Amino acid sequence: MNAPPNITDHLVLFMPSGKRGRFAKGTTILDAARQLGVYVESVCGGRATCGRCQIEVQEGHFAKHKISSSRDSISPVGPKEARYAEKRALPAGRRLSCSATIEGDLVVDVPQDAIVNAQVVRKDADQRVIERYPAVQLCYVEVDEPDMHKPLGDLDRLKAALGKDWGFNRLEADAHLLSQVQGILRQGEWAVTAAVHHDDEADAARIIALWPGLKNEAYGIACDIGSTTIAMHMVSLLSGRVVASAGASNPQIRFGEDLMSRVSYVMMNPDGRQAMTKAVRQEVSKLVDKVATEGGVERTDILDAVFVGNPIMHHLFLGIDPTELGGAPFALAVSGAVKARASDLRLNLNPGARLYMLPCIAGHVGADAAAVTLSEGPYRQDEMMLIVDVGTNAEIVLGNRERVVTASSPTGPAFEGAEISSGQRAAPGAIERVRIDRETLEPRFRVIGSELWSDEPGFAEAVQATGVSGICGSGIIEVIAEMYLSGIVSEDGVIDGALAERSPRIFSEGRTFSYLLHEGEPRITVTQNDVRAIQLAKAALYAGTKLLMEKQGVTTVDTIRFAGAFGSFIDPTYAMTLGLIPDCELDKVSAVGNAAGTGARMALLNRNHRREIEETVRRIEKIETALEPKFQEHFVYAMALPNKVDPYPKLGRQVTLPPRKVLSDGGTEGPRRRSREERAARRRR
Amino acid sequence: MNAPPNITDHLVLFMPSGKRGRFAKGTTILDAARQLGVYVESVCGGRATCGRCQIEVQEGHFAKHKISSSRDSISPVGPKEARYAEKRALPAGRRLSCSATIEGDLVVDVPQDAIVNAQVVRKDADQRVIERYPAVQLCYVEVDEPDMHKPLGDLDRLKAALGKDWGFNRLEADAHLLSQVQGILRQGEWAVTAAVHHDDEADAARIIALWPGLKNEAYGIACDIGSTTIAMHMVSLLSGRVVASAGASNPQIRFGEDLMSRVSYVMMNPDGRQAMTKAVRQEVSKLVDKVATEGGVERTDILDAVFVGNPIMHHLFLGIDPTELGGAPFALAVSGAVKARASDLRLNLNPGARLYMLPCIAGHVGADAAAVTLSEGPYRQDEMMLIVDVGTNAEIVLGNRERVVTASSPTGPAFEGAEISSGQRAAPGAIERVRIDRETLEPRFRVIGSELWSDEPGFAEAVQATGVSGICGSGIIEVIAEMYLSGIVSEDGVIDGALAERSPRIFSEGRTFSYLLHEGEPRITVTQNDVRAIQLAKAALYAGTKLLMEKQGVTTVDTIRFAGAFGSFIDPTYAMTLGLIPDCELDKVSAVGNAAGTGARMALLNRNHRREIEETVRRIEKIETALEPKFQEHFVYAMALPNKVDPYPKLGRQVTLPPRKVLSDGGTEGPRRRSREERAARRRR
Repeated sequence: MNAPPNITDHLVLFMPSGKRGRFAKGTTILDAARQLGVYVESVCGGRATCGRCQIEVQEGHFAKHKISSSRDSISPVGPKEARYAEKRALPAGRRLSCSATIEGDLVVDVPQDAIVNAQVVRKDADQRVIERYPAVQLCYVEVDEPDMHKPLGDLDRLKAALGKDWGFNRLEADAHLLSQVQGILRQGEWAVTAAVHHDDEADAARIIALWPGLKNEAYGIACDIGSTTIAMHMVSLLSGRVVASAGASNPQIRFGEDLMSRVSYVMMNPDGRQAMTKAVRQEVSKLVDKVATEGGVERTDILDAVFVGNPIMHHLFLGIDPTELGGAPFALAVSGAVKARASDLRLNLNPGARLYMLPCIAGHVGADAAAVTLSEGPYRQDEMMLIVDVGTNAEIVLGNRERVVTASSPTGPAFEGAEISSGQRAAPGAIERVRIDRETLEPRFRVIGSELWSDEPGFAEAVQATGVSGICGSGIIEVIAEMYLSGIVSEDGVIDGALAERSPRIFSEGRTFSYLLHEGEPRITVTQNDVRAIQLAKAALYAGTKLLMEKQGVTTVDTIRFAGAFGSFIDPTYAMTLGLIPDCELDKVSAVGNAAGTGARMALLNRNHRREIEETVRRIEKIETALEPKFQEHFVYAMALPNKVDPYPKLGRQVTLPPRKVLSDGGTEGPRRRSREERAARRRR
Repeated sequence: MNAPPNITDHLVLFMPSGKRGRFAKGTTILDAARQLGVYVESVCGGRATCGRCQIEVQEGHFAKHKISSSRDSISPVGPKEARYAEKRALPAGRRLSCSATIEGDLVVDVPQDAIVNAQVVRKDADQRVIERYPAVQLCYVEVDEPDMHKPLGDLDRLKAALGKDWGFNRLEADAHLLSQVQGILRQGEWAVTAAVHHDDEADAARIIALWPGLKNEAYGIACDIGSTTIAMHMVSLLSGRVVASAGASNPQIRFGEDLMSRVSYVMMNPDGRQAMTKAVRQEVSKLVDKVATEGGVERTDILDAVFVGNPIMHHLFLGIDPTELGGAPFALAVSGAVKARASDLRLNLNPGARLYMLPCIAGHVGADAAAVTLSEGPYRQDEMMLIVDVGTNAEIVLGNRERVVTASSPTGPAFEGAEISSGQRAAPGAIERVRIDRETLEPRFRVIGSELWSDEPGFAEAVQATGVSGICGSGIIEVIAEMYLSGIVSEDGVIDGALAERSPRIFSEGRTFSYLLHEGEPRITVTQNDVRAIQLAKAALYAGTKLLMEKQGVTTVDTIRFAGAFGSFIDPTYAMTLGLIPDCELDKVSAVGNAAGTGARMALLNRNHRREIEETVRRIEKIETALEPKFQEHFVYAMALPNKVDPYPKLGRQVTLPPRKVLSDGGTEGPRRRSREERAARRRR
C-alpha cells in the first residue's frame, strides 16, 4: 500500500496466496491485489469488458486468519459489471475485481485454472498450479487522438497510454510495428490491445504486437525437444490453460539414432549441422500447426515460446555446431538462458513473438534437466530430493534449499532397450511388465498396447496387430529383477546354468546361459550379455548418485523423482531391487513424467520462474564424473545385484523381505497399480 | 575517484575537457581519465596493442589552472609501450595512456581528431569537435578456456570477460551470434573483439558483432534523407573521423518533385508507398556502397547508422504511409526516436548493426530539424538564437537555454526556384548572384559553375557547356532585392512601368511589367508574378518568425543560423533587405550548411547527444501556425518590401543606408565574399 494503513481500513485476505493488507473502503479489489503483488489477470485495464479479473468472495469466519468475510463486504454489482455479466454470462458467485470494491473485511479467492498435466504421474495426484506472471501481457488502452497543439506521434501516444494505464516506465516498440501502428489505431478508433513483452524488470518493456479494439486471448508454446520425441503444449497466456498438445518423433533420428551418432554425423558431413537444424525446426513448425489447428488458434496469436532440450538438441535447434559436446571438455557454446525473437530461429509465429530457452547446466546436463529442476524444485524445500532423468546419460540432481549438486552419469542406452539382444524402444508390442514364477520359473508378461497378461485369455488376439516384438527399457528392468528375485541370476549377475535342469527356459548359448522369455517370432531371450549391460548401466547410475550423496554428506535421500519417459514406466520397487536408486520410503518415490515439459510451461507462464531457474543454475554445483576418482570406485562396487556393499541397508530389507513376499503372491499387477489414466495415456502414444 | 583524494596525490588536468582530479602516483592516465569521465578511446583494454588511447603531456606552468606540468611527471616508456611504438610508429610526443602512469602534477591533452565539415560555412570557420561516446564500442577481451569444473558456455565466458574488463553488468547477445561465438573464440585462440551496443544506460548492453583477435576499427554512417538529395557520411566510430562522404538525388523525385506530390502519389497508387520506400532504401544502399568503396571498408565493418529527414522522408524510409501528414492534424505515426536494427529496414550492413533515427518535432518539423537543433544547440546557450531551414516549408527554431519554440511556415517552393517564371533548381547554369546598376538598371550576374560575372571577359565561353538556364533560389532573392534597391520594384512589390522609358529592361506584359535579366535562349525575365511569389514566401517566413518571437517575448534575436542548401548560398544582407530574417548584427548571421548532417554525426558519435535531442524535442514548444490567428495578421503586414510596419528598425537602417552605398560601388563581389572553399564546394555539386 502506498499510504500507511489506516486502522479504519478493511482487512483483505487473498487466497490461495495468503497475502493480506488493509485497504480503504471503496478500493477496487483489483487495485488491492496489485498493491499486494497478487497476480490477477486483466486485459481491459479495469473497464469491465475483458472479464479476466474474476474473483470470488469466501464467506464465513476464518479463525486461522482471524477474519470474517461475507458478501456484504463487497460492493453490489454496478452497471458496468451488470453489462458484462449479461453479455458474457459471468459464472454464479464470480465478480469482476476491477468493478467490485471493498466495503468490509474480505477473504477473496482468486480462481486458479488448475493446470493438470496428464503426463504427470504421481501417487498423490496433486494438481499443479502454475502461478501466472507471463513475460508477454495483453494491455487494452484507449489512446489520445492526434492533436496539432501536442504533435506526438501515434506510437508515442500509444506508449503514453500504456504508461499511464499499465505503469510501464520505459517502452520500446518492435520495428515491424512502425508501419502498422497508424492503421491499427484508426481501425480500432483509438482503442487497441498491445502485447507487451517485459521479461526482465530492469530493461525497457517492448510492444511486440498490436490489435484494434479488445484482444482477449493470446497463447504461448512450451516445447521439449528430446532426441527421440518432441513434445509441445500450447497454453493460454491469460488463463494458463493447456489448449492443445502434440508430439512427434524427432526427425533427426534419420541422421543418427542416439546423440553421439548425431554428433558424428555433423563431424562427417559438411552440411550435417544445417540439415539437422532444418529438420528439427521443420518438425517444430509442424507441431505448431498441429496445436494451433487443435486449439482453433491462428499462428499470429502465439506470442511467446519456451524450448528445452538436452545440450545437443539445444545446440542443433539454435543452429550451433554440437561437435564440441562430443568430447572433453564438453564445452557448451552457450550455457545461459537464450532470449531471442521466434523469427530469429525462423519460427513462424506472430512476427513479434519471443523465444526463451532455459539455461543448460553443463555439457551433459541440459536445458531439459534445468526444466526438470524448475518443475520439481529441490531448492524450494528442505527435504533432500533426488531427481533422476534416465536416457543415454542419466542426469542426476540432488539437493534441497541449502545446496543443489548435479552430475551426468554415462549409463549408456541399455535402459532405453538399446544394446540389449531383444531390446527395443517403447512402442506397441514391446514387453513392459514381467513376472516370473518363483517355483516353475515360467514367465508372464504384458506388452505396450494391451492390458492383458500373456497368460490371460484373449492375449494373442489383443496383440495380433503388433505381435510381441521385443523388450523395452522398463521391461528389461523387470525381467532382470524378476530373474534375480527368482534365483535365476546370482548377485554377481551370472545366469545360473544349473537351473537348466529345472526349466527349459534356461538354456546354454556357448559358454553362458540365457533365459527364454517368449517363444515366437521373434524369439525373445535375455542373455548373459543383456544382464551385463544392465549391470553396467545401473552401476553408472548408482555411482553418480552415490557421488552426489557424498558431496552432500548424506547416506539417504528423503524423496526420489523419476523424470522422463523411462521414469514414468519403470516400477520403483524393481528399480530399488536392482539398486538403480538409493534407499527411500516407497511412497516418497514418484515418477513425474515429462517434468521437463512442466518446467518449460512454468517458464512460459511466469517470468519469475525464468529468473529462478537462471539463478538456480548459476548456483548449482556441477560434478563432472569423469574428473572424480571416486566415481570409478563406486562404479565397480555397484556392479553387484543388489550392490555388494549394500549402500542402502533399509533398501536391502525392503528388497529381500516385502517385495519377494508380495511378488510371490503372483498378483496380476506389479507392486504399484498403474492408474486408468496412465494406461490410457500409454495407449495413445 | 573511488577513494577520497589524498593530499599527497598528484593533480591531473585533462584538456580540452578541463576535467581535473587528484590521483595516486602510479595510476595509469587511462584509469584517471575514466574515473573523471573523460572519454579516451581504447579497444584493447589497456594491453598497449590497439594504440587508441594516445595522449600528450602539455609542458609549462598553467597559471589559470594553478598547475605546472612537465614530461618528468609521467612514467618513462615501458617495454609494452616501446613495443607498440616500434611496431606501429607512435607519433612524437604521444604516449599510450594505458601504459603511462602519473608521477607528478600533469596537464594531459587528449588529442581530438578535429571534425571539419567541408559543407559547414561559417564566418568564424570554427572547427567542430564532436565529443565521442558512441553507442557501439569495440572491446577486446581474453576469454577463459572451457573448464569441465565450471561448465560455463563459450558465450557466457565471453560475457564474464566483458563484464570483468569493461564493466558491463548486464549483457545479452544478438541471436545471430549464437552459432558463431564458438568458432570465433577458437579462431582467435580465446582472444576476441566484441562490438557492444549500449545506447541506453538503463538497458542491458548487447554484443552485436564478434571478431577473432584484435579488431581496431569500426564505422558508422550518418545520413540525411532530403526530398531532393540524400547525403551520407561514413565515420570512424573510434576516431570520429569522416572517412568518406557521398550524395545522390533522391530517386523518389520520379514519383513527385515535391513532398506533397509524393504524398499524393501514395494516395493515388496502392503500391505507391512501397515503391517509394524501396526506391529510397535502394539509393541509401548504393550510397553505402559508395562510401564503403571510397573508404576501403567492408559493409560488415559498419556497425551503426543514424538517419534524419523531414517527416515525410522519415516515414517513407521507415515504410510508414505518409498520407496522414498530408492534411490536418498532420499526425506523425511515430515522433519519438526510432531504435532498430539496420536489418529491420533491410539495410545490409554488419548483421548486428543498429539504426537510430532522431525524433521528429512535429508533423511539419522533422528529424532533420531535430538534427539541426542538435547541431546548433540553441538550448545549450544564453543568446536568443534563430535557426531557419528553408525548403518548401521553412522550419523555424527560436530559443535559448531557457526555452525553445518552433514552427513550420508554409513558404511554398518559391525560394527553391519553383513557381518562378524563370526559376529552376540550383544546378550549373542557374543564375545565383545578381547586381543591377542603380543608374542604368543594367544587370550583371553569375551562374553556378562559373566564377565570372556576366560582364567579364570569357563569360560566354565559361558557361558554354550549360548556358544560362534560369534563376535559382538565391538568385531570385538577389534579383528582387536589387530590383527593390534600384527602385524598379516599389515597397508594395509593384514593378514600376514608368521606368520602361528609362530602360528597355523594363517592359510591359499585358497589365503588368517585367524585368529582362538575360536576353538569350531561354530568355530570362522577372515578372510581376515572380515578385508576388517571393513576397508571399518571405511573408510566410517572416510571419512564422514573428510569431515565435512573440511567444518568446523578444523583438530582436542575438544570432541567426541559416541551415540547408538554400541557407548556404543565400546572402544574409539580401535576406535582410527583403525582410526574410529579423534584425540582427550581420556578423551574427551565419550559414551552417548541412547542419542536419552534422546533427546526425553527433548522434552517431555520442549516445549522450541522442538523449540530449530526445529530451530537447520533448521540451520544445511546437507552434502550429495554422492554429494561430496572429499568423495571418503578421503575414499580411509582411507582404511589403521591406515590411510595411518595419518589425526590425535597425534592419531598416542597414538596408536603406549602408547596403545601397556599398552596392552602388558596383563591386564585383556581393556584400559577403564567398570563400574559396565555398566556391569549390559549389562546383563539386
